[in-house]
Amino acid sequence: MTENPKLDRLKELLSEVDDLRKAATLLFWDQRVMMPPGGSEARAEASATIGRLAHERFVAKELGSLLDELNDEDYDFESFEASLIRVTRRDYEKAVRVPPSLTGEMRHASATALSAWGPAKEKSDFAALLPHLQRNLELRHRYVECFEPGNETYDVLLDDYEPLMKTAEVREIFEGLKRDLVPLIKEIADAGPVDDSFLHEEFDPEAQREFCYAVVRRFGFTDEQWRLDTTQHPFMCTPGEGDVRITTNFRPNDLTSVFASMHEFGHGVYEWGVDPSLQRTPLGSGVSLGMHESQSRTWENLIGRSRAYWRFFYPQLKDVFPAQLGSVDEEAFFRAVNKVHPSLIRIDADEVTYNLHIILRFELEQELIDNRLDPKDLPGVWNERMDEYLAVEVPDDAHGVLQDMHWAGGSLGYFPTYSLGNVMSVQIWERLKEDLDVDEQMERGEFGEIREWLRSHLYVLGRKFTPQETIERVTGSRIDAAPYVRYLRDKLAPQHA
Amino acid sequence: MTENPKLDRLKELLSEVDDLRKAATLLFWDQRVMMPPGGSEARAEASATIGRLAHERFVAKELGSLLDELNDEDYDFESFEASLIRVTRRDYEKAVRVPPSLTGEMRHASATALSAWGPAKEKSDFAALLPHLQRNLELRHRYVECFEPGNETYDVLLDDYEPLMKTAEVREIFEGLKRDLVPLIKEIADAGPVDDSFLHEEFDPEAQREFCYAVVRRFGFTDEQWRLDTTQHPFMCTPGEGDVRITTNFRPNDLTSVFASMHEFGHGVYEWGVDPSLQRTPLGSGVSLGMHESQSRTWENLIGRSRAYWRFFYPQLKDVFPAQLGSVDEEAFFRAVNKVHPSLIRIDADEVTYNLHIILRFELEQELIDNRLDPKDLPGVWNERMDEYLAVEVPDDAHGVLQDMHWAGGSLGYFPTYSLGNVMSVQIWERLKEDLDVDEQMERGEFGEIREWLRSHLYVLGRKFTPQETIERVTGSRIDAAPYVRYLRDKLAPQHA
Repeated sequence: MTENPKLDRLKELLSEVDDLRKAATLLFWDQRVMMPPGGSEARAEASATIGRLAHERFVAKELGSLLDELNDEDYDFESFEASLIRVTRRDYEKAVRVPPSLTGEMRHASATALSAWGPAKEKSDFAALLPHLQRNLELRHRYVECFEPGNETYDVLLDDYEPLMKTAEVREIFEGLKRDLVPLIKEIADAGPVDDSFLHEEFDPEAQREFCYAVVRRFGFTDEQWRLDTTQHPFMCTPGEGDVRITTNFRPNDLTSVFASMHEFGHGVYEWGVDPSLQRTPLGSGVSLGMHESQSRTWENLIGRSRAYWRFFYPQLKDVFPAQLGSVDEEAFFRAVNKVHPSLIRIDADEVTYNLHIILRFELEQELIDNRLDPKDLPGVWNERMDEYLAVEVPDDAHGVLQDMHWAGGSLGYFPTYSLGNVMSVQIWERLKEDLDVDEQMERGEFGEIREWLRSHLYVLGRKFTPQETIERVTGSRIDAAPYVRYLRDKLAPQHA
Repeated sequence: MTENPKLDRLKELLSEVDDLRKAATLLFWDQRVMMPPGGSEARAEASATIGRLAHERFVAKELGSLLDELNDEDYDFESFEASLIRVTRRDYEKAVRVPPSLTGEMRHASATALSAWGPAKEKSDFAALLPHLQRNLELRHRYVECFEPGNETYDVLLDDYEPLMKTAEVREIFEGLKRDLVPLIKEIADAGPVDDSFLHEEFDPEAQREFCYAVVRRFGFTDEQWRLDTTQHPFMCTPGEGDVRITTNFRPNDLTSVFASMHEFGHGVYEWGVDPSLQRTPLGSGVSLGMHESQSRTWENLIGRSRAYWRFFYPQLKDVFPAQLGSVDEEAFFRAVNKVHPSLIRIDADEVTYNLHIILRFELEQELIDNRLDPKDLPGVWNERMDEYLAVEVPDDAHGVLQDMHWAGGSLGYFPTYSLGNVMSVQIWERLKEDLDVDEQMERGEFGEIREWLRSHLYVLGRKFTPQETIERVTGSRIDAAPYVRYLRDKLAPQHA
C-alpha cells in the first residue's frame, strides 16, 4: 500500500492484468512442454481469450483516468511510484493507439503464417510463404500508422522490443561492428581451421542433461524455484514470482547443445532477480529483449565459453564422456567451443559471425518496411549479402531466408536486439570485473558473487528505467560496441588464441 | 452459430467464461503436478484473480439480460438451445445470489483451514482444526441464507454438488443401503477372513506405473489426448477439449494403488466423451459429482474388480510381479482385491463398507448444519458411530474425524455424492449389460464397445439434463439402490464368493 489511494487503485488494476498475463504465460509453457497435442485447438481459444482480456483490462478507461490524475513528478524519479506511473503511462499510451481489430488481424495472420512456415521451410519453398510475408508486412504498415511518425518508419517497430531505442543509433552501432568484425573474421579464417570434430561424436542426451543440471545448479538453479524441461526450441518463461522455467534440447551428435541451458539460465536469472516489490506490476520483468539477451549471452558466452569456466567444468565433462573427450586437452576443447567459422544458420553461429547474421536481417527489415525491397526479392538479396558479409554460399532457402520463424510470426524489429544484447553484455561484464575477480571465482566453480553482483546492480531494476537509462546506471555509459569488439579480438583473434 | 443473434451473443459470453475456467483448471493442475514450490504465493494470487474474473463475467448484467430475453421453451426441450438456456439460467440464478464478499470470505477461510488441516491431522490434534471448522460452518450458514429456504437446510448444500437432488431422497436411498449392507457385512465377517497379504509386499512403483499404462491404454487412453502423472492425491481435470489429465500415485507396498488409475480414467473418459458441440458452454462437462463418481467406480470396480477383467489382466500382472504373485491363483487374487473388511479410512475401504463411511458423514453434516451437533463434539460422535456401523474402534482423530480434507475445505454436501455414484454406476451397468456381453469383452481385454456404449448413452449428454433426468434417460429409472445392493450381494456374499 502507498499513501495515495489512486496509486493503490492503479496497482490493484495492474495486478489483475499481470495475473492474466501470468496465466497466459502458463498456457504458453504448458502447450509447448506438457499438453497432449489433442488440446491445441481449445488452447488456442483459451490463450486468445486470456490475451484479449488482459489487453482490454489494461486499456480500460478507469486505468487511463488514473494515469491522467497521477503525476510521476510528484515523486522521486527513482522511486517505485514515479517509475510505475511513468512506465505504465508509456505502455498505456502505446496500447490504446492500436485498435483491437488490428491486433486481432495481426495475431491471426501470424498464426496462419507460422503454420505455413514449417512446411515451407521443410520444402525450401519460399513461394509458399511469400503471400503470408506480404500480409504480415501490410499489417505492420497499418500498425506503424497507428503511431506518431518517428524519424524513421522502423523506429516504431524497434520500440516494441527495445523501448526508446532509435534505428539510427542501432545503425551506428552495427556499422561499427561490421567495420571491425569483417576483417577479424578474415584474420581468423587465414589462420587456418580449428578442429572441433570431437564435439560432433555421439553424446547420450541423458548424460548431457545431467551435466547441464550440474552446471545450472552451480549457477543458482534450485528445485525450489526453477524447472528445466526439454522442448524442440529452448525458451524461458516465468509463470509467476519464484517460478522460473527454462527449456532446452540435447542433440545426440552435438555437444554444443549444452550451451542452450546456460543461455536460458541467463534469461531466467534476470527475471528471478527482479526486485520482489515490483512483482504484479508492469515493472516486474526484464527491461528489453536486448538487455535480456545481454544476460543470456553473459551466462552462455562470457561465462560458459571462458577458459576459467572450463578449467572447473572440463574435468567433470571429461568424466561424463571419457570415450569422446579422453584425448582432448582443455585448451583444444576451449578452442573448439570458441571456433569462429562463417556458416549458414544464425542459431548455430559463433560469437563473431553471429552479428553479421543479425546485421543482414536488420538491413533487410528496414528495406522491407520502407518499401525499398519487394518481399518477393528477399531470397536473392539474402543470398547476395550472405556472400558479401560471410562469404557463404546459400544452397537453398531452407538454409537461407526461411531459416527463422520471426518474420512469419510478424516480428519485425526483433532481430537487432540479439546483437545489442551481445554488445551490452560485455559493457556490463567489464564493469563487474572492476569489482570481482571473475576468473578466480569461475575457476573454483563459484558463481554466487557474480550472480549477486548482476542481481543487485541490474536484475533488481526490472523495468523501472529505460534500457539506455538502465545500462547507464549499471556501467556509466550508453550502449557502446567498443568493449564488445575488444573482447572478441582479445579472445578470438589469431595472435591471442 | 445459431439463427438467434441473442443466443449467439450468449454463447460468446459463455465461451469467454469457459476459457477463464479452463485457464484456472490449468493453474490448478500445474500447481499440483509441475510448479516449483516457490511459485505458490504468486499462483494463489493468479488463481484468485482468474476465478474472480470468471465469476464476474458470468454474473455480468449483459448475460442476465440475455437470459431474461431468451426463452428455452421456444426450442425443443432436448435441443442444444433449450438446454443451454435452461442450464445457464439455473447456474446464473444461483451465482447471482451469493455476494462476492461472501465468496471471498469462504475461499479465504477454506484456504486457511486447509493449511491447518495437514498439521492437525499429522498431530491428531482436533482442537487445532476446530476454530476453522466453526468458521467454515458459520460461513456455510450465511451461504445457505442467500437462497430460498428449501425443505431442509442441507438441500442448499447438496444442490451445489448434485443439482436438484433433495436431502430426503438421499436419506431414503441411504437408509435402504444401511439396512441391507450392515447385515451383509456381518455375513461376510462371519464367513472368516480372506487372505490379501500378498497385495502388501514390495511392488516397484515404476513397474506398477507400466502396468497401469497398459491397462488405461486398453481402456482408451491415448498420448494424443491424455496425460497420466504422479501426485500425492490422485485427481482428474480437463484444461481443454481433447486434453484429459489424470494423476495417481503408487505406494510401494500396496498393489491396490493400481485401482486409482482406473478410477481416475473413469472420471476422465466421462469428460472425454461429452459431445464436442457442448464445449465452451456450461453444458460441456459431466452433470454432477455423483454421476462422475458413477463412472470412476464403473471403471475401477465394475470393470477393474471383476473376474472377467482379471481373466485378461492377471496373467500380465503376474508376469510383472512373478516373485510376489507367482504362487497366487486368479481366484485368490480376485478375492483379495475384493476383500470386504471394516476399516478406519474411507479412501481405503472396500465396495461394501465404503458406503457406511459415507452415510456416517452425511448424517453428521446434516446435524452440523441444523445445529443439532456442536462441532466440538464431532470426535466423540464420530467414534461412537464408527463402532455402531462398522464395529471399528477409532484409535485417534487422525484415523477418525480428521482423515478427510473436505470439511476443512468448506465442502459440506459433497460426501453423499460418492455413494450416489456407487448406486448409479450399477443401474447404468445393468442397462449396458442388456446390450453387450461385457464379460466376454473384458475377458478378451476389449473395452472399446463398453466405452462407446457409455459415451453414446451417457457421456455425450454432458450437463444438458439434470442428474435425475440423465439417469432416467440412460436407464429408464430414477436413482434406485436395489441393483447396487443386488450386485454387492451377488459378488461378495459368502454363499457366492
